[in-house]
Amino acid sequence: MAADFQIIDMTQALSPNMAFWDGVGDFGLELETDYKDCTAPNLFRTQKINSGAGVGTHMDAPAHCFEGGRTIDLLTMDELIADCFVVDVTSRADENYLIMPSDIEEFEKAHGQIPQSSLVIFYTGWSKFWSEPAKYHNNHKFPGLHSSAAEILVKRGVAGVGIDTLSCDTGANGFPAHRIILGADKYLVENIANADKLPPKGAKVFVMPTKIKGATEAPVRLVALI
Amino acid sequence: MAADFQIIDMTQALSPNMAFWDGVGDFGLELETDYKDCTAPNLFRTQKINSGAGVGTHMDAPAHCFEGGRTIDLLTMDELIADCFVVDVTSRADENYLIMPSDIEEFEKAHGQIPQSSLVIFYTGWSKFWSEPAKYHNNHKFPGLHSSAAEILVKRGVAGVGIDTLSCDTGANGFPAHRIILGADKYLVENIANADKLPPKGAKVFVMPTKIKGATEAPVRLVALI
Repeated sequence: MAADFQIIDMTQALSPNMAFWDGVGDFGLELETDYKDCTAPNLFRTQKINSGAGVGTHMDAPAHCFEGGRTIDLLTMDELIADCFVVDVTSRADENYLIMPSDIEEFEKAHGQIPQSSLVIFYTGWSKFWSEPAKYHNNHKFPGLHSSAAEILVKRGVAGVGIDTLSCDTGANGFPAHRIILGADKYLVENIANADKLPPKGAKVFVMPTKIKGATEAPVRLVALI
Repeated sequence: MAADFQIIDMTQALSPNMAFWDGVGDFGLELETDYKDCTAPNLFRTQKINSGAGVGTHMDAPAHCFEGGRTIDLLTMDELIADCFVVDVTSRADENYLIMPSDIEEFEKAHGQIPQSSLVIFYTGWSKFWSEPAKYHNNHKFPGLHSSAAEILVKRGVAGVGIDTLSCDTGANGFPAHRIILGADKYLVENIANADKLPPKGAKVFVMPTKIKGATEAPVRLVALI
């Protein structure tokens, strides 16, 4: 593949030391059997995962906010493999910034209207703090999405919306972007890595959540092909 | 994407009711917060994952068998996005069958030599029992891979090897295929779904493991583009 495309892994690695929504660790990888516990030559190391479902680079499915909404396993490949549009708001996105309709309008003026079934990623630059969990968490102060911007995306008929922060809502004013986007049966992807490596348009993304029956959230392997 | 490619999801959904290596359930999705526990309008359902790392459609990294071997997070996109070759052994693969060099030779006679950096999937037909966990598990009797066939694949320089059974080794005669393939720094994918929907060659696969730092195994979202 390397010859045909540039491949960008937009996934943060899951570890106990990353930033979590509430600031408290919620990911564990526990040793189950180790090589030394085995009989040669059949040596194995096995592990158990104990994790919140919505940690690291992850997806929120409609059921995360809406009873009866679709769960992770019901999202279709046509939604999960999408054309990707990256809206760079780094010049404005301080810890209090809410992404506004004007950010989308400015992007569309330069790159054309965002087409149906796309994944729109907001690159706020907050991902630069990923390796400093306390700073990334920042007591729930980080860039988010204003309800009016979420409404435009739904009007465009996007497949999903992504951001390089812990959440597209900080919770300070409730969770309007969650309610609008998930309420329209779209998905969210949070804690995105390497959004700066993508062009504003032209990349194809593979948004690959762990396929868990009945899950409202799940870790995602997010990969872009340029 | 739908217009350009046919997309096949080759992933079994994770649930507590699936077949597990040792026959004992090792996947749980636990309710953490439910809608009714929240204050309107901010309703959420959150969950916790308690799971063996090597359940469902999953990957074994070299570190699964070899101390100091690469873990899941260290596999590269060039290995994980690969040309896919599907060797159909359904006509011979009863519960005692071991895939032999002759199976690979016959495939190569028809379709040409398996090139470097491919994913080779053995379609045994055992996946038809997936929805009957006891039958799929079958007291560890299901088709596997003979050491001599594993050696040929390593000689071809494949990126990885997949199979539609619980494991490429049943354990009855140790785990020679694991040791040969992982020992050559390649990866394994087990419990593959929908291998019958792929052509013998010509599909591109995206083998997308949950990116867990230090994991020896991990769930995989496996998707093919035809």
